Amino acid sequence: MNMQRTYIINGGLDHGVSPFDRGLSYGDGVFRTFKVIEGLPVDWPLHYQRLVSDCGAIGIVCPSAEVLIGDIQSLFSPNDSAVAKFIITRGEGERGYAAPAVTMPTRILIKSELPTYAASNYATGVQLYTCKTTLSFQTALAGVKHLNRLENVLARAEWNDPTFFDGVMLDMESNVIECTSANIFARYDKELHTPSVDRCGIAGVTRQRIINLAHLPKLKPIVKNITLPELLDADEVFICNSIYGAIQVRTIAQKHWAMGDLATRIREILVPL
Amino acid sequence: MNMQRTYIINGGLDHGVSPFDRGLSYGDGVFRTFKVIEGLPVDWPLHYQRLVSDCGAIGIVCPSAEVLIGDIQSLFSPNDSAVAKFIITRGEGERGYAAPAVTMPTRILIKSELPTYAASNYATGVQLYTCKTTLSFQTALAGVKHLNRLENVLARAEWNDPTFFDGVMLDMESNVIECTSANIFARYDKELHTPSVDRCGIAGVTRQRIINLAHLPKLKPIVKNITLPELLDADEVFICNSIYGAIQVRTIAQKHWAMGDLATRIREILVPL
Repeated sequence: MNMQRTYIINGGLDHGVSPFDRGLSYGDGVFRTFKVIEGLPVDWPLHYQRLVSDCGAIGIVCPSAEVLIGDIQSLFSPNDSAVAKFIITRGEGERGYAAPAVTMPTRILIKSELPTYAASNYATGVQLYTCKTTLSFQTALAGVKHLNRLENVLARAEWNDPTFFDGVMLDMESNVIECTSANIFARYDKELHTPSVDRCGIAGVTRQRIINLAHLPKLKPIVKNITLPELLDADEVFICNSIYGAIQVRTIAQKHWAMGDLATRIREILVPL
Repeated sequence: MNMQRTYIINGGLDHGVSPFDRGLSYGDGVFRTFKVIEGLPVDWPLHYQRLVSDCGAIGIVCPSAEVLIGDIQSLFSPNDSAVAKFIITRGEGERGYAAPAVTMPTRILIKSELPTYAASNYATGVQLYTCKTTLSFQTALAGVKHLNRLENVLARAEWNDPTFFDGVMLDMESNVIECTSANIFARYDKELHTPSVDRCGIAGVTRQRIINLAHLPKLKPIVKNITLPELLDADEVFICNSIYGAIQVRTIAQKHWAMGDLATRIREILVPL
């Protein structure tokens, strides 16, 4: 199957995005990527909640859940299993940073093929690159999945070697924050640590679900700053996002871990909402 | 005259920007705003040089000057005087931060009406707001006029009062860096200081021209960190950009300056290249 990427803009089969859209001019918008399984969006309540709060963080009024669900129903048929990406921007604007008094948010929904992760990634774990590009501190935007993602782009451009599944990104003070496309967790005995995203980084939906569900595998979730040496000192490490769930990390820099079962246990508790 | 904004995308009268364009997805691109007077782009050699170096900073190969000049000639007639904005993005991409091995940059040229600044802004100077939104440090992107501009958007959204012409933005360490849409200069006797943009901020073309030409009004240009109290201690302050040239600042916070003639002298030396 080679499903073409398809999309709808503002609910219609549009010719494209306006060159005056502030999403393009300034990255003035947010996005969310999630799975659609047999026409149904996975973890939709949490993704919608995050769209609303992320829009709110930059002063955009998110379209209603009804409107967005309508878009999903228009673009995905009941037997579609695919990746969905919503981009919500502030809409069109005049020249200049000041937004018009009244704006009509632009909503773009994109359908793309569900990636087929090599079975070995689940079975034997993955290796992470250590990025040199750091994440800058901006408390006004921390946690928000906004469209200003040049740091992730620069970080991802640092490696080509496909043996690296993703790259660990640090902040300016050498704390581990996340991967370019994933959040990260580290187990120390019965504690499950994940970095704070209060100064930079993205608060992923799967990260939040894992924090909420950590008690099921009898782990105590702790959000805190973690340095790279501290991360390498963990008993087990895994990364997570809304597409692949959780994947065990085996190698970062010179550190190698034996294969553990934590990512598998986490995937089992991540029953779709 | 109510000239409609018009545009061309990749040299043609396109229907819009692809929703897969990385300029929209990630702010993965750069831009430049400049005047076109009777069909001719003002300070074009410097603007093109900056497009090339800004593209280079994020790994985009800027289209040739010939191609961009061709776009200008297509969109502007020989009697057009207007504002031009070039957006150059990395082009379309697949899902994910990794850029395709081969990308074709997208170029968007927008024409909009030349603003008519109130004569009083030139005659009697302007008042600046002091923004609470700070600029974050990111040496990999500092100086570059890229499309990740949410900090400017948030800062500009802080005030509605039209008595403020622009807003001063500080960095995380309380250094003055720039305004939301301008660079800033402060005169102390025969020294003309302007903030360093090595950790954040945009290196504007007009800023660079003023640094290069400061010897004409017998001033010594100095690029350095300037705190807000130091700025308020200046003999004269002005702001600059490629559209209005230079405008005298009369008021910031509780500080008021008598009207000076520095901005007028600077405008006189800013003969278009």
